[in-house]
Amino acid sequence: MNKYEKESRLLHGGDYNPDQWLKHPNILADDITLMQKAHINAVSVGIFAWSALEPIEGQFNFTWLDKIMDDMAKISVNVLLATPTGARPAWMSQKYPEVLRTNARREKMLHGGRHNHCFTSPVYREKTAIINEKLAERYKDHPALFMWHISNEYNGECHCPLCQQAFRIWLQNKYRDITTLNDTYWSTFWSHTYNDFSQIESPSPIGETGIHALNLDWRRFVSHQTIDFYKNEISPLRKLTPHVPVTTNFMGRFPGPHPFDGLDYAKFAKEVDIISWDSYPAWHNDYETTEFLASKLAFLNDYFRTLKDKPFLILESTPSLVNWHPINRAKRPGMHMLSSMACLAHGADSIMYFQFRKSRGSSEKLHGAVVDHDNSAENRVFKDVADVGQALERLKNIKGAATPAKVAVLFDLENHWALADAQGFTNNDKKYPRDVHAHYKAFWDKSIAVDVVTKDKDLTKYQLVVAPMLYVMDAKLIADLAAYVHQGGRLVSTYMMATADENDLVYPGTPQALRDVFGINILETDTLYPSHRNGFALGGKEYTTMDYCAVIETCGADVLAAYNQDFYKDTPALTKNTHGKGCAWFLAARTNADFLTDFYAPIIAELGLTIPPITSPPGVSVQMRENNSGKYFFVLNYTEEQQVITLAHPMEDMLTGQTIPQGKSVMNPYETRILM
Amino acid sequence: MNKYEKESRLLHGGDYNPDQWLKHPNILADDITLMQKAHINAVSVGIFAWSALEPIEGQFNFTWLDKIMDDMAKISVNVLLATPTGARPAWMSQKYPEVLRTNARREKMLHGGRHNHCFTSPVYREKTAIINEKLAERYKDHPALFMWHISNEYNGECHCPLCQQAFRIWLQNKYRDITTLNDTYWSTFWSHTYNDFSQIESPSPIGETGIHALNLDWRRFVSHQTIDFYKNEISPLRKLTPHVPVTTNFMGRFPGPHPFDGLDYAKFAKEVDIISWDSYPAWHNDYETTEFLASKLAFLNDYFRTLKDKPFLILESTPSLVNWHPINRAKRPGMHMLSSMACLAHGADSIMYFQFRKSRGSSEKLHGAVVDHDNSAENRVFKDVADVGQALERLKNIKGAATPAKVAVLFDLENHWALADAQGFTNNDKKYPRDVHAHYKAFWDKSIAVDVVTKDKDLTKYQLVVAPMLYVMDAKLIADLAAYVHQGGRLVSTYMMATADENDLVYPGTPQALRDVFGINILETDTLYPSHRNGFALGGKEYTTMDYCAVIETCGADVLAAYNQDFYKDTPALTKNTHGKGCAWFLAARTNADFLTDFYAPIIAELGLTIPPITSPPGVSVQMRENNSGKYFFVLNYTEEQQVITLAHPMEDMLTGQTIPQGKSVMNPYETRILM
Amino acid sequence: MNKYEKESRLLHGGDYNPDQWLKHPNILADDITLMQKAHINAVSVGIFAWSALEPIEGQFNFTWLDKIMDDMAKISVNVLLATPTGARPAWMSQKYPEVLRTNARREKMLHGGRHNHCFTSPVYREKTAIINEKLAERYKDHPALFMWHISNEYNGECHCPLCQQAFRIWLQNKYRDITTLNDTYWSTFWSHTYNDFSQIESPSPIGETGIHALNLDWRRFVSHQTIDFYKNEISPLRKLTPHVPVTTNFMGRFPGPHPFDGLDYAKFAKEVDIISWDSYPAWHNDYETTEFLASKLAFLNDYFRTLKDKPFLILESTPSLVNWHPINRAKRPGMHMLSSMACLAHGADSIMYFQFRKSRGSSEKLHGAVVDHDNSAENRVFKDVADVGQALERLKNIKGAATPAKVAVLFDLENHWALADAQGFTNNDKKYPRDVHAHYKAFWDKSIAVDVVTKDKDLTKYQLVVAPMLYVMDAKLIADLAAYVHQGGRLVSTYMMATADENDLVYPGTPQALRDVFGINILETDTLYPSHRNGFALGGKEYTTMDYCAVIETCGADVLAAYNQDFYKDTPALTKNTHGKGCAWFLAARTNADFLTDFYAPIIAELGLTIPPITSPPGVSVQMRENNSGKYFFVLNYTEEQQVITLAHPMEDMLTGQTIPQGKSVMNPYETRILM
Repeated sequence: MNKYEKESRLLHGGDYNPDQWLKHPNILADDITLMQKAHINAVSVGIFAWSALEPIEGQFNFTWLDKIMDDMAKISVNVLLATPTGARPAWMSQKYPEVLRTNARREKMLHGGRHNHCFTSPVYREKTAIINEKLAERYKDHPALFMWHISNEYNGECHCPLCQQAFRIWLQNKYRDITTLNDTYWSTFWSHTYNDFSQIESPSPIGETGIHALNLDWRRFVSHQTIDFYKNEISPLRKLTPHVPVTTNFMGRFPGPHPFDGLDYAKFAKEVDIISWDSYPAWHNDYETTEFLASKLAFLNDYFRTLKDKPFLILESTPSLVNWHPINRAKRPGMHMLSSMACLAHGADSIMYFQFRKSRGSSEKLHGAVVDHDNSAENRVFKDVADVGQALERLKNIKGAATPAKVAVLFDLENHWALADAQGFTNNDKKYPRDVHAHYKAFWDKSIAVDVVTKDKDLTKYQLVVAPMLYVMDAKLIADLAAYVHQGGRLVSTYMMATADENDLVYPGTPQALRDVFGINILETDTLYPSHRNGFALGGKEYTTMDYCAVIETCGADVLAAYNQDFYKDTPALTKNTHGKGCAWFLAARTNADFLTDFYAPIIAELGLTIPPITSPPGVSVQMRENNSGKYFFVLNYTEEQQVITLAHPMEDMLTGQTIPQGKSVMNPYETRILM
Repeated sequence: MNKYEKESRLLHGGDYNPDQWLKHPNILADDITLMQKAHINAVSVGIFAWSALEPIEGQFNFTWLDKIMDDMAKISVNVLLATPTGARPAWMSQKYPEVLRTNARREKMLHGGRHNHCFTSPVYREKTAIINEKLAERYKDHPALFMWHISNEYNGECHCPLCQQAFRIWLQNKYRDITTLNDTYWSTFWSHTYNDFSQIESPSPIGETGIHALNLDWRRFVSHQTIDFYKNEISPLRKLTPHVPVTTNFMGRFPGPHPFDGLDYAKFAKEVDIISWDSYPAWHNDYETTEFLASKLAFLNDYFRTLKDKPFLILESTPSLVNWHPINRAKRPGMHMLSSMACLAHGADSIMYFQFRKSRGSSEKLHGAVVDHDNSAENRVFKDVADVGQALERLKNIKGAATPAKVAVLFDLENHWALADAQGFTNNDKKYPRDVHAHYKAFWDKSIAVDVVTKDKDLTKYQLVVAPMLYVMDAKLIADLAAYVHQGGRLVSTYMMATADENDLVYPGTPQALRDVFGINILETDTLYPSHRNGFALGGKEYTTMDYCAVIETCGADVLAAYNQDFYKDTPALTKNTHGKGCAWFLAARTNADFLTDFYAPIIAELGLTIPPITSPPGVSVQMRENNSGKYFFVLNYTEEQQVITLAHPMEDMLTGQTIPQGKSVMNPYETRILM
Repeated sequence: MNKYEKESRLLHGGDYNPDQWLKHPNILADDITLMQKAHINAVSVGIFAWSALEPIEGQFNFTWLDKIMDDMAKISVNVLLATPTGARPAWMSQKYPEVLRTNARREKMLHGGRHNHCFTSPVYREKTAIINEKLAERYKDHPALFMWHISNEYNGECHCPLCQQAFRIWLQNKYRDITTLNDTYWSTFWSHTYNDFSQIESPSPIGETGIHALNLDWRRFVSHQTIDFYKNEISPLRKLTPHVPVTTNFMGRFPGPHPFDGLDYAKFAKEVDIISWDSYPAWHNDYETTEFLASKLAFLNDYFRTLKDKPFLILESTPSLVNWHPINRAKRPGMHMLSSMACLAHGADSIMYFQFRKSRGSSEKLHGAVVDHDNSAENRVFKDVADVGQALERLKNIKGAATPAKVAVLFDLENHWALADAQGFTNNDKKYPRDVHAHYKAFWDKSIAVDVVTKDKDLTKYQLVVAPMLYVMDAKLIADLAAYVHQGGRLVSTYMMATADENDLVYPGTPQALRDVFGINILETDTLYPSHRNGFALGGKEYTTMDYCAVIETCGADVLAAYNQDFYKDTPALTKNTHGKGCAWFLAARTNADFLTDFYAPIIAELGLTIPPITSPPGVSVQMRENNSGKYFFVLNYTEEQQVITLAHPMEDMLTGQTIPQGKSVMNPYETRILM
């Protein structure tokens, strides 16, 4: 059991940057009091503290951190101790320019910002290893040391000569000989044949951008090199503190929704002990409903939960607003509790913030924090935070509780990369994340638990797998899905399916294995202009299609619906095929949400997917987690109005301790209930 | 007679890139069969094959090409053999960095993309000459060798030191002394006087952009240097294969419509044996009618036809869709035949495609082709192509048929350059091509043949010359037009006329010769905001004006219409002047199409411009070509509905062999008929 | 008394660039005639004449300028002699590359454009001093020498190593030690601590952009260095021509409205003898009314007038149109008089133009000028100019007349900088100038004179100070405003007040001094999305709020209005507090103009702010200047319709000499009257 596993509390806290306040001892003293008032039990310390820890090369100063660690231990606050490599001291850039990044335009960056380092640089790796080892040595036995917070939101890429060299070696290891690479890259096109690995340059706006397989390999290499850098970071920690778990904060992207796509989190997940992510939805915006945004947040939470198939941490969120959205709106009353419980509902075992105390200066001083510039425990935000802290204490039994999902929705990063890069169809945005989320939401709306899976996952445990818009499918994924259906699984796929392999080499028509599974063959894809529409009827109802309409022919499948317009009128728009013990649906066109809702309803019924004992109107979400202590139903009113829910039997509200009787019950706008 | 002249067939085929498939002999074998099924008789081979032909410096490999040439000869397919300079092998960039381009920002580009070479580089010219000579030596007597396809879509510019030097020499040759250049550039403005040619740099976003005459000279130099590079390319071919004609594929731009404007095609045309161009309209878009887009395509076809006053080749088009439009929509049934015949109707003697077979990988793998990834002759696109192939066989007598035009519309590239660069009026887009096309369309709508002329053309053969928006007019053009009218010609011009000379030096008022011709003097030009309107009445009908309203006074002209608003209310908006044996109209403002239609109708009637024996409703175009065998009437239904045409006498449909009786006849949506 | 003070005429003229026409002596002769016809009495000569004055390094040519000076003296035209440093000869860039600018991306610029020099370069400063000294020596006793026109529209910045070094020294002088700088920059954030001044680089898109205090210091440094360069320029002039006043042309920005924000004009103003600016509103646009644009022009005129609290010069304007607006529309009849008098109405003592004669070539040849390419005195524009010249002669008594303002509106450049850079609230545009102008217009609409003050001004002379959106307030400004109110002043401020100090360090809550003054405390600020609204009622009328709604609590103030929606419903939206002998209003939210009009009406009444003896409808502005000779009322009809004004007593129209009787009187569209 590592330190995290031994902790019985749900974590509540956030980034704590005392290194900004070392000249203000009264502030540091206030921090102690305010943390306790806010029911805080965990803080991430030292994320950008390299300058404070090693102000001059080789001269280390841990005095201030010793005191913080001791203080935290005294008030039973767990410290997620950060390695400080998210930004580095100015002296290092000055003395060792090789640590500075080079951008894709081949400009050497100046010192500044953060994550501005070369991941390949031997100097930077050495300096990183030294500071990390020093931290581990000093605090390995400190009672406050709870978890390692490695660097911060890894991202970005470097195109310097060291990285070019590393890329070439990575390619050489992958392809062995240049001919194999040329064949894979289809480099005869435009005479792009390489004679030698030394001729390869990373993609660049002033060089090569059109070799899609090279672009994909570059993204893979950036992931590889970042993870390799991360491994270098944790190597001294693993040695000195084997009992301390390691995490690094991943990111999600709104309005996507999709995980940050600069790194392959499915690969990265294997190297961390617990998944954590930073969640910043733009609540109360004017371009989508609160409920719609909540379903995006749920999608991302389910994605991160599924990465390791267990609860995860929210390592950053804001108690009020951020400062980097186009428009930065504060959470209205009730929203902080609601949005926090929205994460717990989908598997989070923590609510943590950036940051504990607002900075006085520099670029994020207007970002929301637990403690505002007024240093008060009396303002609206602080009280909202304290309420969530109390709620987490009441909910502590939920720690580790599972989300039993029988439905999987597949989001594949390499497909996302390839579609973003693909020249064809609609060039500005093919909306892959929008599509995956749209299918996801049909289940979320009905309180059906969903795993958002990556393609490395075992699918056999699911009753239904939904895999939209899989333009890129490698041979293994095709085989996996075929086997899954053959053995009894149910599969849904859509237009663009299996256009190309993992190197973006186009298949010579729909692969036979998929023809067998779906009983269809894709003939061509009609790409529609924004104002264009087609449609089909199903069960007496008309549905609209848009953007993409694949023209298909059946080779075994039943036609459930056919297009009602254009030259492919009366050809199949929706099919179903029995294959082995399972079956597979093919949806040939993009539709609105109404179709997906109606399409999945009978499937949900047929599969007997669990419906909770709480009936709720649209906008009120019910999600369940369970463990030995029972089933927890999160009932979350994402609307700006009162709503009536109906309980099948009396239940206890874990937040208030009150019993809600059977039958109808009114929930206030943004109200949160956790019922057992 | 050169090889092309000896060929009796209309060309049908396209870019054939077997070098992408050398490891797939079964594919190469299928190619032979599929070409025959598709009625293909011409292919462009080796366009990007330099790496395949010279994989290592000085080591040439023609084996594969020998086989292709032999195979093509066997099936009577003509080979347009390409010089491979559109892209070069990686080894060359690596060994001779001088061949790499430098962009306007003075960044040395990395190897990648295509057309990424310096046109000045002695190394690149030498390497080009060598490979071209090798090709000519090897295939000069090969029966398949039909035409030279020089490089590919020449474009772009290089700002490297070698090009700067060449530019300075070009300037020195033009101006002789720096004082003349200074005077021409009006360089006293902002103290821009040069002491010496060595101080001149090409225009740059990090340097000089505001000397319009320098910008114009730079564009002229880029044309000069590109053509000079081209001459270097063809020099060994001319020597070794005097009987083989030479072309290079020009480009057109939509939605423009205008020819690619990076090169002066009027100058380039003199150096090629036959004009060819690559045509990629976005059919079925949602921002213009099919008929309107067709009129743009017609405009471009007429431009390219007029360049050498004879039929030309469509060297690239797509049988279905492209992959680089914002939205890539496939041709609906009927459109491939319709859009192909739309080119023949305006003077094309070929329909060729990019490309014969879709690539499996790299950036254009989703671009339409004759043979899809499924390698099938059974899909919709292949069958459409084969139908066009058959049609071309039926129409072979049309080869070389002329388009007798009595109306010329002038499109002047230097004016286009100057207007795009001019600071004044509406700065974002002055819409010169839109205007030229608007005048053109008034004739096209009525089946009147039009030549789209460049200013080097002899105008005396036309009954009417339309020259809108000639902001730049050099002394020769002014004199030519004046003489043309004086000798009996009819001329129409508009606002902005003769604002500046060919160095963008403003004239001191409307030049006297033009005052004489038009009987007017331009006082000022009102530039309107988008929502502003003025107007005038003519023949009892009200017309709207917009964007530009010149305020003029007459000095001899009759006022046909006067403005109805603003401070220049009641001043002339449209005038007519008799000059010598001819007359000249001046349209002072931009109008909608309705006015142009009504304005030209009586002129057309008066001139007795030929009206075809087929009456058609709007959207059904009738265009004629003629030769010894007779007159061919292309009747093209560019609407999505059935339309009724009326024949003055029975005619034969060349595509079906059937006779269409006199009187009314129904045409289906997108239907094509070629009647004699 | 300097030469300007001795001049009894209002200046009329403009930039005169004979160096463009030295090869056209007939044109130079025509200039003399045309100047006289246009009633011109002042010209700015030699602004970009360096190449003409020093064509080769060290070889000076004053012959042509001698003649121009003599010619001007002969016709009593004052010469504002320019130092020619706005652009430099090509030989200098070629021989001394250090004079070329380096942009923020660290790219060395090529020779070209203008203001492309490094302000730090010792070579450039030396060359500047030499040419300026030569000019002063030669013309110091010339009767035509009237004023020095230093360089032209100083702007831009250089990031070269010389400037980096100068910046570091400037920082060292400001902060003394690096620790103070680190504390001020809050550089512990993201580990940005500097060990040494040598590590500091100016802000860059390829380096640091997020340290707001560094960004502010960089802007201050650019101002400092530019002014320092200017001081170097004028040093020989001060020595040799102590009797000749010095100006440099400042700039205003539309649609802002705000002064050019690249330089701190409040600091710069102290170094010039008379303020002058270049005014280019886009008259007759289609996105705002003429009257609204006129109020922006008035705002800028009042800003420039207030800089030195005395009349100023319009040094550039256009008689017709410019060539660099997106759409360049000519002034309609009447507008040139109207827009010229609009400047006089607010304190201008000149109307001057860019430029006297249109250039034949280069980038500004299509910019309006007194003399058009037709070289005629008969066209509309020339006659409009001559009319203004005549009007100025009739109005000469007005020279030096004051604008007695009792209301001040504060525009603080450093606040503007900080808000533009602030990460938070609405990130794309916080609209500070829009807000300051909105308050200003409430007074302008009622013919109340307003000073647009900078924060260095003594406020005690005002009855009312309006200071909206003061996100940045330094300690001195807080103290000044508090003292102002305490001593009896009236103050209005709004949301965002005193968020941060002058280094963008956030205050720990509303500063106590301001809590005392306003009797309120800001709790948080709600940033609204564009479609969101809140509102409040006052005096039985409903008003809408948008964009920003501060949530405040009172600590002494009276609540005048409360929000009517959202979670802060019923909390104060508008308060008033008595403090010492004065009082202070706090407007918590952004409103529409209707509220500001209604809000200020009773305050204007209470303060007895002067209302003119002319009643006018909306769109007809009445503004007053006064001196010993009396009060001049400028009555300006900014509408496109006839309007009726009412005179309290008969008055004389200074332009026509006619007496307008008491009572109603009709003004034509765009009509101008100056009544006494």
